[in-house]
Amino acid sequence: MTKLDEKEIINILADKLDIADLDDVAFIAKNIVFKTDMLVASTDVPPGMEAWQIARKSIVSCVSDFAAKGIMPHAAMISLGLPRNCTRPYVEGLARGFAGASKEFRVKIVGGDTNEAYGLVIDCSMIGFSAGDKLPTRKEARPGDVIVVSGMFGLPPAGLTILMRKAIATGAFRKQAIESVLLPIPKQRFGLVLARNFSSSIDSSDGLAASLYELACQSNVDFEVDNIPIADGIEKFAEDNDLGSHELVFHGGEEYEIVATVPTAKLNQAKVAARKAGLKLHIIGRVRTGAGQVFVGKKLLENKGYVHFRMR
Amino acid sequence: MTKLDEKEIINILADKLDIADLDDVAFIAKNIVFKTDMLVASTDVPPGMEAWQIARKSIVSCVSDFAAKGIMPHAAMISLGLPRNCTRPYVEGLARGFAGASKEFRVKIVGGDTNEAYGLVIDCSMIGFSAGDKLPTRKEARPGDVIVVSGMFGLPPAGLTILMRKAIATGAFRKQAIESVLLPIPKQRFGLVLARNFSSSIDSSDGLAASLYELACQSNVDFEVDNIPIADGIEKFAEDNDLGSHELVFHGGEEYEIVATVPTAKLNQAKVAARKAGLKLHIIGRVRTGAGQVFVGKKLLENKGYVHFRMR
Repeated sequence: MTKLDEKEIINILADKLDIADLDDVAFIAKNIVFKTDMLVASTDVPPGMEAWQIARKSIVSCVSDFAAKGIMPHAAMISLGLPRNCTRPYVEGLARGFAGASKEFRVKIVGGDTNEAYGLVIDCSMIGFSAGDKLPTRKEARPGDVIVVSGMFGLPPAGLTILMRKAIATGAFRKQAIESVLLPIPKQRFGLVLARNFSSSIDSSDGLAASLYELACQSNVDFEVDNIPIADGIEKFAEDNDLGSHELVFHGGEEYEIVATVPTAKLNQAKVAARKAGLKLHIIGRVRTGAGQVFVGKKLLENKGYVHFRMR
Repeated sequence: MTKLDEKEIINILADKLDIADLDDVAFIAKNIVFKTDMLVASTDVPPGMEAWQIARKSIVSCVSDFAAKGIMPHAAMISLGLPRNCTRPYVEGLARGFAGASKEFRVKIVGGDTNEAYGLVIDCSMIGFSAGDKLPTRKEARPGDVIVVSGMFGLPPAGLTILMRKAIATGAFRKQAIESVLLPIPKQRFGLVLARNFSSSIDSSDGLAASLYELACQSNVDFEVDNIPIADGIEKFAEDNDLGSHELVFHGGEEYEIVATVPTAKLNQAKVAARKAGLKLHIIGRVRTGAGQVFVGKKLLENKGYVHFRMR
């Protein structure tokens, strides 16, 4: 348990990340989209997550937000707040996670900052390029648009419940559920291929309900959804553990799916693009005239999700 | 003492900062230099610093690093980690500080992220433009170059000593010393006007000695300095409090002066530019052949500064 000083920590990271020129600013090529996301271990890290997985997750959050807008990440900076007593293996684990994520998501980590903090804090800032001068926002869903998602819901909330409250689960389902939390997969390809067709979009990391409400409210329309794609085994898991599957699907969070709206005029184009890319475009509903409400079938959905300051 | 949830905090900030489009990514104009800096209240905030001053300081750190490279900031993102029990006036104070700094340093804050954390953490990411495709690095000081600084040393360390250890000081000196800590001034104009003449540069926020050593080591040369400009009253303050003025000048930190090297071929040009801009270019020494040592006169300077992980 050797204590490290700041220089040693920087050296471990710079070495692992191939940052040759340690400096306060990084010079990068032509650009555009800019984003930051802070991970705080005490609220964002479930029990059982290893250092490298935590580091990876801090990158995933940014990559996922970029994906929802169809942006390929280009460069990232990492600011680290580390507890005073953190060990070399721990910092090396973080560095390994950053390096791995850098390769996995093709984003060059160009620098960062380290500090002593109360507990682990990772802030990831990311820059990327956009093809045109317009990104899908959160406020341009229009009545008539169809609502689409990139994948299944329910698995990460089930995994979280297993990790945090020791819910019962066995075999492949247990493994998959836990892995979906520890090694989340942002839907990078889905976003890159399809975002040009989105009238609005968001990633679902705050939960499906919260994401739907965010788009509906900001666009000042109603959303009407049904047919949510639910991960295999969720119904049985919910039953075994006396949980509501509705709760797991809509109010979980920690999912990195893309939730978007597509104008009907672009729907065919989106379907063709998805098919060509081997991606599944799940249509879950339609935008209606309204004032920011979300209905599942005809029933009003509760506007509740994962909000940091309400969670604990 | 009302508790806030995340949305309320975001709304306070967005309102204060005129961020109309709340979204996960921000679309900014043509680009280039990228930087991040994390402020952790428990290590970076002296007693007596108000919320708005803390917020301002988090911006100053980035602006100062940009200034040392001659870069005008363009856009910033703020990631905030806030303790669970933080109050509305506190968050409003932070927002006021960000908004004020945004105006003061002409940097648009384009977005950010908020989280619950153990204590206050602010991560500022900044993007700016450079005129050419080359920035002064830390590793290109060459034997024969002159070493320059943007201003006086000793005042912030004196202020810190007053704030932290209740050192004795009165009148105007006390006020100035404390103000230099609570409202640090990055040397933006100095950097913008002169950086094109620098062969290497850094800001002195880790202390003068640490900054000189960083440039000397990375450039693999020796630095020989004397004639350090010392703030008025430092000698008397040191004497009154039984402190070494050498310690205050070289090993203090929290200063936002620029330390740079200028090739002799560019020195005249630099002097003319400084004079025209009404700036004082303090020449404090010369670069020698060597291997990373710093001498004050003929005496080896101790390589010691403000290093987060050694401080506490």
